[in-house]
Amino acid sequence: MAVAMPSDTPDAGDRQFMARALRLAERGKYWARPNPHVGCVLVRDSTVVGEGFTQPAGGDHAEIMALKAAGDAARGSTAYVTLEPCAHTGRTPPCCNALIAAGVARVFVGLRDPNPKVDGGGIHRLQAEGLAVHQGLMADQVEAQLAGFLQRQRLGRPRLRIKLAMSLDGRTAMASGESQWITGPQARLDVQKLRAESCAILTGVGTVLEDDCALTVRDSAFDDELLPAPQRRALRVVADRHLRTPAHAAVLQGEQPSLILHGSGADASHLPETLEHLALPGEAGGVAPAEIMAALAARECNEILLESGPTLAGAMLRSGMADALIVYIAPVLLGSRARPLLELPLDEMAEALRLQLVDRRQIGDDHRFVFVPQSVA
Amino acid sequence: MAVAMPSDTPDAGDRQFMARALRLAERGKYWARPNPHVGCVLVRDSTVVGEGFTQPAGGDHAEIMALKAAGDAARGSTAYVTLEPCAHTGRTPPCCNALIAAGVARVFVGLRDPNPKVDGGGIHRLQAEGLAVHQGLMADQVEAQLAGFLQRQRLGRPRLRIKLAMSLDGRTAMASGESQWITGPQARLDVQKLRAESCAILTGVGTVLEDDCALTVRDSAFDDELLPAPQRRALRVVADRHLRTPAHAAVLQGEQPSLILHGSGADASHLPETLEHLALPGEAGGVAPAEIMAALAARECNEILLESGPTLAGAMLRSGMADALIVYIAPVLLGSRARPLLELPLDEMAEALRLQLVDRRQIGDDHRFVFVPQSVA
Repeated sequence: MAVAMPSDTPDAGDRQFMARALRLAERGKYWARPNPHVGCVLVRDSTVVGEGFTQPAGGDHAEIMALKAAGDAARGSTAYVTLEPCAHTGRTPPCCNALIAAGVARVFVGLRDPNPKVDGGGIHRLQAEGLAVHQGLMADQVEAQLAGFLQRQRLGRPRLRIKLAMSLDGRTAMASGESQWITGPQARLDVQKLRAESCAILTGVGTVLEDDCALTVRDSAFDDELLPAPQRRALRVVADRHLRTPAHAAVLQGEQPSLILHGSGADASHLPETLEHLALPGEAGGVAPAEIMAALAARECNEILLESGPTLAGAMLRSGMADALIVYIAPVLLGSRARPLLELPLDEMAEALRLQLVDRRQIGDDHRFVFVPQSVA
Repeated sequence: MAVAMPSDTPDAGDRQFMARALRLAERGKYWARPNPHVGCVLVRDSTVVGEGFTQPAGGDHAEIMALKAAGDAARGSTAYVTLEPCAHTGRTPPCCNALIAAGVARVFVGLRDPNPKVDGGGIHRLQAEGLAVHQGLMADQVEAQLAGFLQRQRLGRPRLRIKLAMSLDGRTAMASGESQWITGPQARLDVQKLRAESCAILTGVGTVLEDDCALTVRDSAFDDELLPAPQRRALRVVADRHLRTPAHAAVLQGEQPSLILHGSGADASHLPETLEHLALPGEAGGVAPAEIMAALAARECNEILLESGPTLAGAMLRSGMADALIVYIAPVLLGSRARPLLELPLDEMAEALRLQLVDRRQIGDDHRFVFVPQSVA
């Protein structure tokens, strides 16, 4: 049988194995952070001899898990890895070394890792040791799967998704603030998944004071295999210039970590000593979009989910930092006195913010739309 | 070959012929009003020998058109008619007589006609003459197809559909009134079809004064076969208590008829003498939902399309007279200063108006949702 070198055009079989690696990678998406969730499949004689996906940070990378599963069968095999194997020692030893040591013969890499510590270094290392390497197989799918991680590596800022739940007439709460529940239980369960796949859930102090939201990821929404407890939970972040968040606020309770971003002069004496809070240097005192995003990038956050009131959501959107809007629309009218979706003070149609639809689905009685602001798209 | 009597359970062939009659009926939907648009298929020896659909009012009914097409072949045939054939002389002679005279042997009727002048009379007449009659074949489809006509016959009021075109954040115009164009060209073309299938297009004087809307059905949006010019165009109706509509208003120009509904004391001296206007007796001076609907029912309007600002649309919705909301959502944000979708002054979530989704589709870059208010559903 002629063995195609990986530099050749990948065939249908190669695509199938990479697709399998992409599916495997999905299993790590709730826990891999701040690492990218990667999948790896090892194949010898057209048979899968090992497979793996990124384990919680500090645990095995996808390649190591696959090599362990394959044992001796890894010798002479072909590896399908969604992201370039690392060549540096981070929390774990470099995966390249392990692939070489196990005698893997060739490697299909989905996407080159833009992380400056990798960025082609892994591929060169493998090639230098005589492995045949092909890169770019199903790269678009990897781009989509690791959008947050890739954006942070490339632009130095996390991916920001703004979640909005609204009535058909574009309202998020009654004038009184009453808002539970606009969307149905299935939509709220869907939000649990958005939270779980985010590194941080961001809100504003106004929402904390008004709704006393907990922003928790509930174990009950996940089965143990996907999100075994105790797993790292999304960091709950409150943008709170004057540190008005009370010590008893729900967002500060429980095992899930919390962080308050505030201005440099704010008084933290009323808050528990164990609470993490961070004074941001800028003039806006911790609530300017760019400051918030920079602080979260510095904490290796890849994916931010914004769940706030119209003020912070409007500011983030106007700042151009919003990468996506995830909008749940419920089949209900809250009326013209109710609160607006976003604080967006526009006067002319020419200022209207155009959006590009990227996904739509019905969730229970509600509809979920995902849009990308057109300036970003 | 055994000939099944129509009183038997209809078979797949019968359903196929009735489905064909339903499709034929659609071809009359833009011009039949105030008559229902009906389809008829004549079948002999499993072969279609004639078919027809309701011609513009005063022209042939579906049965007559089919009988003319069939000629002598109608003798001994089976007729599939979506709605019960008439037994009374209206603008045209009764269809029952023609079916009997042509020697039709049996008749499948989709739905009994609730029009008090028919209401089973047609079926009895056919049976009395020895024809075998089956009723109820695909009756649900006929109900949907003739919803406006049937509602007017049964409840004495037309079917009211409220058309709304809004931004994602539930706004219909900037605060200044600027609103062209929120939705794209395909959505606006779709609105042309809604207008064409309506007996009347209703708006409020506020919209007339602000937008100088013409509410026309444009010939260019239809091919000649569907809507041959000059055909009856939807009546443009302005609810205008104090007769503030100016003589030069676009809604009063052109060949398409116009009607102003106003209060009894209003002064019409500034309007052209040829303009039709009607003083309504009620205290609300021609703008109360029930008065408007009664006046339009009296004019044999089956389907009303409301295209107005938030005030009249909100009032109609609150009155319980709205049978459907047709909402076009454009992927754009107009911001928090822009105008609300509906004037609906609600204070508590418990008052929120629940809707039931009955249709959704993407039209160009926009989405069209059709809802039924849950109190009506």
